[in-house]
Amino acid sequence: MDMIREDVGLIDMTTVGLDIGSHKAKISFASKEPIVLCGVEFVTEMCQKLGLETYAYKACGDRLEAGELILEAYGRADATHKAWKVSQNILEFLSGIATKTNTMITLAREVNPKIELLTTRKIFPRTKELALKAVYAGGGAHHRLGLYDSVLVFKQHRVFFESDAAFEAQFAKMKQKYLEKKIVVEVDSYEEAHYFATLGTQILQCEKMSFETLERCVALKEEFPHLLLSATGGIGEQNIVAYAKTGVDFIVTSSPYHAKPADIKVVISKEG
Amino acid sequence: MDMIREDVGLIDMTTVGLDIGSHKAKISFASKEPIVLCGVEFVTEMCQKLGLETYAYKACGDRLEAGELILEAYGRADATHKAWKVSQNILEFLSGIATKTNTMITLAREVNPKIELLTTRKIFPRTKELALKAVYAGGGAHHRLGLYDSVLVFKQHRVFFESDAAFEAQFAKMKQKYLEKKIVVEVDSYEEAHYFATLGTQILQCEKMSFETLERCVALKEEFPHLLLSATGGIGEQNIVAYAKTGVDFIVTSSPYHAKPADIKVVISKEG
Amino acid sequence: MDMIREDVGLIDMTTVGLDIGSHKAKISFASKEPIVLCGVEFVTEMCQKLGLETYAYKACGDRLEAGELILEAYGRADATHKAWKVSQNILEFLSGIATKTNTMITLAREVNPKIELLTTRKIFPRTKELALKAVYAGGGAHHRLGLYDSVLVFKQHRVFFESDAAFEAQFAKMKQKYLEKKIVVEVDSYEEAHYFATLGTQILQCEKMSFETLERCVALKEEFPHLLLSATGGIGEQNIVAYAKTGVDFIVTSSPYHAKPADIKVVISKEG
Amino acid sequence: MDMIREDVGLIDMTTVGLDIGSHKAKISFASKEPIVLCGVEFVTEMCQKLGLETYAYKACGDRLEAGELILEAYGRADATHKAWKVSQNILEFLSGIATKTNTMITLAREVNPKIELLTTRKIFPRTKELALKAVYAGGGAHHRLGLYDSVLVFKQHRVFFESDAAFEAQFAKMKQKYLEKKIVVEVDSYEEAHYFATLGTQILQCEKMSFETLERCVALKEEFPHLLLSATGGIGEQNIVAYAKTGVDFIVTSSPYHAKPADIKVVISKEG
Amino acid sequence: MDMIREDVGLIDMTTVGLDIGSHKAKISFASKEPIVLCGVEFVTEMCQKLGLETYAYKACGDRLEAGELILEAYGRADATHKAWKVSQNILEFLSGIATKTNTMITLAREVNPKIELLTTRKIFPRTKELALKAVYAGGGAHHRLGLYDSVLVFKQHRVFFESDAAFEAQFAKMKQKYLEKKIVVEVDSYEEAHYFATLGTQILQCEKMSFETLERCVALKEEFPHLLLSATGGIGEQNIVAYAKTGVDFIVTSSPYHAKPADIKVVISKEG
Amino acid sequence: MDMIREDVGLIDMTTVGLDIGSHKAKISFASKEPIVLCGVEFVTEMCQKLGLETYAYKACGDRLEAGELILEAYGRADATHKAWKVSQNILEFLSGIATKTNTMITLAREVNPKIELLTTRKIFPRTKELALKAVYAGGGAHHRLGLYDSVLVFKQHRVFFESDAAFEAQFAKMKQKYLEKKIVVEVDSYEEAHYFATLGTQILQCEKMSFETLERCVALKEEFPHLLLSATGGIGEQNIVAYAKTGVDFIVTSSPYHAKPADIKVVISKEG
Repeated sequence: MDMIREDVGLIDMTTVGLDIGSHKAKISFASKEPIVLCGVEFVTEMCQKLGLETYAYKACGDRLEAGELILEAYGRADATHKAWKVSQNILEFLSGIATKTNTMITLAREVNPKIELLTTRKIFPRTKELALKAVYAGGGAHHRLGLYDSVLVFKQHRVFFESDAAFEAQFAKMKQKYLEKKIVVEVDSYEEAHYFATLGTQILQCEKMSFETLERCVALKEEFPHLLLSATGGIGEQNIVAYAKTGVDFIVTSSPYHAKPADIKVVISKEG
Repeated sequence: MDMIREDVGLIDMTTVGLDIGSHKAKISFASKEPIVLCGVEFVTEMCQKLGLETYAYKACGDRLEAGELILEAYGRADATHKAWKVSQNILEFLSGIATKTNTMITLAREVNPKIELLTTRKIFPRTKELALKAVYAGGGAHHRLGLYDSVLVFKQHRVFFESDAAFEAQFAKMKQKYLEKKIVVEVDSYEEAHYFATLGTQILQCEKMSFETLERCVALKEEFPHLLLSATGGIGEQNIVAYAKTGVDFIVTSSPYHAKPADIKVVISKEG
Repeated sequence: MDMIREDVGLIDMTTVGLDIGSHKAKISFASKEPIVLCGVEFVTEMCQKLGLETYAYKACGDRLEAGELILEAYGRADATHKAWKVSQNILEFLSGIATKTNTMITLAREVNPKIELLTTRKIFPRTKELALKAVYAGGGAHHRLGLYDSVLVFKQHRVFFESDAAFEAQFAKMKQKYLEKKIVVEVDSYEEAHYFATLGTQILQCEKMSFETLERCVALKEEFPHLLLSATGGIGEQNIVAYAKTGVDFIVTSSPYHAKPADIKVVISKEG
Repeated sequence: MDMIREDVGLIDMTTVGLDIGSHKAKISFASKEPIVLCGVEFVTEMCQKLGLETYAYKACGDRLEAGELILEAYGRADATHKAWKVSQNILEFLSGIATKTNTMITLAREVNPKIELLTTRKIFPRTKELALKAVYAGGGAHHRLGLYDSVLVFKQHRVFFESDAAFEAQFAKMKQKYLEKKIVVEVDSYEEAHYFATLGTQILQCEKMSFETLERCVALKEEFPHLLLSATGGIGEQNIVAYAKTGVDFIVTSSPYHAKPADIKVVISKEG
Repeated sequence: MDMIREDVGLIDMTTVGLDIGSHKAKISFASKEPIVLCGVEFVTEMCQKLGLETYAYKACGDRLEAGELILEAYGRADATHKAWKVSQNILEFLSGIATKTNTMITLAREVNPKIELLTTRKIFPRTKELALKAVYAGGGAHHRLGLYDSVLVFKQHRVFFESDAAFEAQFAKMKQKYLEKKIVVEVDSYEEAHYFATLGTQILQCEKMSFETLERCVALKEEFPHLLLSATGGIGEQNIVAYAKTGVDFIVTSSPYHAKPADIKVVISKEG
Repeated sequence: MDMIREDVGLIDMTTVGLDIGSHKAKISFASKEPIVLCGVEFVTEMCQKLGLETYAYKACGDRLEAGELILEAYGRADATHKAWKVSQNILEFLSGIATKTNTMITLAREVNPKIELLTTRKIFPRTKELALKAVYAGGGAHHRLGLYDSVLVFKQHRVFFESDAAFEAQFAKMKQKYLEKKIVVEVDSYEEAHYFATLGTQILQCEKMSFETLERCVALKEEFPHLLLSATGGIGEQNIVAYAKTGVDFIVTSSPYHAKPADIKVVISKEG
């Protein structure tokens, strides 16, 4: 309901001013273009809280052709007007993300069938909950939800150690303490990658490397058979195939968050 | 603090695991490209709540060259790591919006010096508060915050009236009741525009019209000298000049919300 | 539910102490005097959240005679006791405001049939959402919800300008930027009124003027045919007719907020 | 800060439109009439959160003459405009309540020096926290905060018992269980009063009794020396003396909540 | 729902990863040992909010043998997995408290049939609402909810008075002002107890006294027939009988909060 | 501040009634027994929000002897009384957990120096944030924060699969999708343990096994050198050594949550 409150506020002036609130109404949502749908569960719940009776014809993750009906809701006209734009925004933004996620992963798997696409923490504040559903709807998954669910070492951590020896000792301790977690390290050169592989790092996150460097890093798997590698930094629809070809195990990207919103047609009509 | 909580959660595992939290640290933010800056006040407040001492060198709305320093904050390493990504996200997303807003309005004013750019309610839920600052930083303003601050009549309202006469009677009542507000109507043809101008509508929001139709609508100002007109629907950097040339008084757009985030460099370093 | 929590807290000691919570009960609400009703939708929702089955016989805005039944709710005795006083407070305070609003506007329209009554921001903190419904139920509307939905210039703004010229330049810029809003200025003399009318102000809010001055200001409409004027400051039931006679377009008042609460009879009884 | 958010919302359009936000400003509050002050601590805290430097010259509970300075705050002009109306509302409403509470208790004590004045739960939802401070500032206290802090038996509880015997048995159990609480019963006749006194009720709340009946009830103290009695129902400034004369121990009233707000002068000025 | 959010967060990774969310499922809860049940209403409400259909076979306060079925809920598998652990935690912790409360009060009443057991404010922050239900389910009650619902004088209050005379004067004033409350004082010696009894204290809270001292204090009731006495400080199952035997009116303890959680069996199964 | 609100509510009646609020006061906290301290940062922040000046002499994780001073805070007497019990509760409950965690891990490491102690989700709702700090202060870590940060397969998940083959196929898919996570499975027999080891499970959580079974499971590491094993179910101070001796890599326990609260001495005194 915080999303309705954000958009509706204390009064819908136009509906009150035109005195149409108590009419019986229908609001319907349909796709205007092929999409991977997301957000219909949020919209259903929102409409129900506004007192509307809902009929959902499609579910999160469904692929829709242009023109397919998604959801209809029946009730008072003022409730349909309160629901309108927030519902449309949710469906458009989330389906946009789901669709782009799906496009990217499909492209990548054509050249690397087992590759995964995971999305980052680089996201507009307060949108994580919604965007997460959309990434899953499109076939991706999350890289990390935040600082609380994984261990990922950056240069910004390593600067606090006086020496490699000091770092290595503490790194070993952390591996021991967080034995239920895989340890991930962001690296930006082959040398770093090799160094961290020898320290027993389980995942190397390869940041903005050239394709050649990336391939050399992937080749470390011969020496370190349990090592996993991801590519990250500036990966989108236009270049994901090239990254996938390097043989990395997964892509870490924020590109789907910037998807063009899907185009959803909304019609409010009078009933009875 | 809800934004920090969203990203940090209950524990920063890496910082705890590496046991670097109590080191003295500095975090600094700088632009990597020319931008119109936004978000520095939010970041300052956030850093202060985390116990950091802040020095802001630039303010919201400033134009920055690549490489200019924005903000430095000093304190415990764990606080800098908590602040890092949320701060960066705020600066990148908000400066992206501010910069795109500014680019669009600058383009439009070259051909129509008094034109305004106002942004819509078509926005990712929960981002309105932040995005609003960015639109203003870039020289734009808001079209409407939500349903509560203005009167805007859509077809979706008009469907509830049995006849034109019934609508016109109620429309007149609304004008009278909301006499402190300008009445805005969305129209999509010249005929609608003319009809609503004769009803005393103060602003016509012209939705997805051809440039010729738009110019005919603008010409209504000869007959209705107090009438204002806006163009809306699919307006972005690529076509704003053409819309501006039609002589509309303002542009209503959601395009800045989809700006590419600005590129902000963040460095965490050890102090003392 | 925050309103129930405020009144009920962690335990209803009396109901627990008397061990009557699981009895079947009915709670009913009726008017004790003629009123314009408001609050019944809030009470219905509250009772339902407490698990009661509700039957509302009257709606927000209805005129009731003394003794008319408003709402009945059935369920557990502990739920009726939780609902009792909060529901009664809502109905009494809101109906009080609605009734006074209605009385004032009725009085005013007898001498000035097109006059409107709008209520101010001068309200007990945290009561705006509820009071707003009551003002509408009584036939009034809101003047401004807060600082966010309108432009209203006070002396307290003008003190920051070094000269009239500086103010006028910025005032013109603001009119241009906020072209979707009517610009309102509070004035307290004829001279100010005339000055701001010449600056293109759309609405003059006349603060605590004598009736003669007010009439002179209203006469400015001859010169400025689109100008609207409101009277404000100390207007209540006792003097609204005199203000209405001056010919102002609307009254801005906080008087309804201080209405005597309506008298609502509540009966809790045992069922079955 | 929820109170500022309620009034300011997402943007102060006038201050932004006039571009005066970054000026140095002072806001000052003074009484326009003799009052018992309340709210200054809330205003101080609010101003500080808005970044203003505050100087409070008076404290909650102080008696002020007309024209006395209460508080000054210094800082950015936009902060003073955000603080203005909410601060004024708090001071006016709370000082109004404090002053009326004080007037009533002073009147009552002239004829009954040990009488207390306690205020009820019959209050506009969401205002309890603020109003409570005002009642104390005026020399009163609270009757009960809600259902959670005391035991008060109404007819609405007693209807659930099949017989007097059943009620009496449970009443005795409750007295035993809640042995740290005084048991209060609302009665509306002498017969009820006598009956509950014999049951060991510690406080009789006498609802809307005639003065004679009230005096008869007070006389029960001869037989029940530990018994306390209060009068309630329709008691205000106009009749509190008569109620006090009956010899009741305290008055339970909601009258102070409906006090006329105090008149507080606010000036915003430019500094430096 | 805050409790579900605390445990489930943004995604149930295992259920999503195994793709079992849309299966039809049943979740059932049963006791594994004899308990006094508490929490079933919370669990019912939680399950319903998650979209499950619930059947509660037992209610708060019921005594259960090992193996008795408490609640079944039917619906989607993902909802049962979200409900699982939070529901189990609520039932286990609350039934643990209820059972221990019941054990203690039963022990105490065998030697002192009218004794009451009241629990303290010494509780893990944020657990008061839940624990309160459990104490009542077990037959106890609350001593004080917090600082807001009673008057209890500690040494930590008395240190602010320069002299006994100053304290006594203010103590008398407080008794007069808070005439609807019983005044409680914590004492730790017979001398203090006697002193406060002579001041008209209604309840003496005897802190960590020897049994002999406690008995001497109880004997004060001969001189002060309305006086009530409680024992507090380190009272648990192991020594409550000895405290009860001293003749105190009630026990104030936090011991039930530290009860071993009850053992509740949870089974999730596939339906249909 | 929600914790203060929970305990203090709308008014501290005793402090108000005794009129001591404006005195200058000091509150100090000291250990009464040897403890591992936790909670001092929370108390510091809380005291500061109440306007007190704080001096912390010890930090989270410090080992204290009986009688050592932890924190002093100076300011108004009413603020010290608001801070008192909540602060004491935080220090007592959190230090209790930290101390027990430390005792358990110390015992375990005497026989198994590399063993870790991780705590579960089996915790009183709403206490996770606070308890987590305490577990870390004592040298433990968290097993999983909730459903959102790890993959842990229970029987309650496996019941939804028609066949082992169906489960194995989906289990493999999940391993692939969640390639940044270690997959954990709870097993309760050697056969299950062996089965899941062959499926490539990274961690086996051995639930309530006999010591012999546990040792057989640990022996699986010879065949599966990367396999990690934990023991869980009923492990506390009394038996952790026996579990540690089996050679498991870590213990998963909720035992520290049920620690006896530490004994903290609080003194409030008058200053100046």
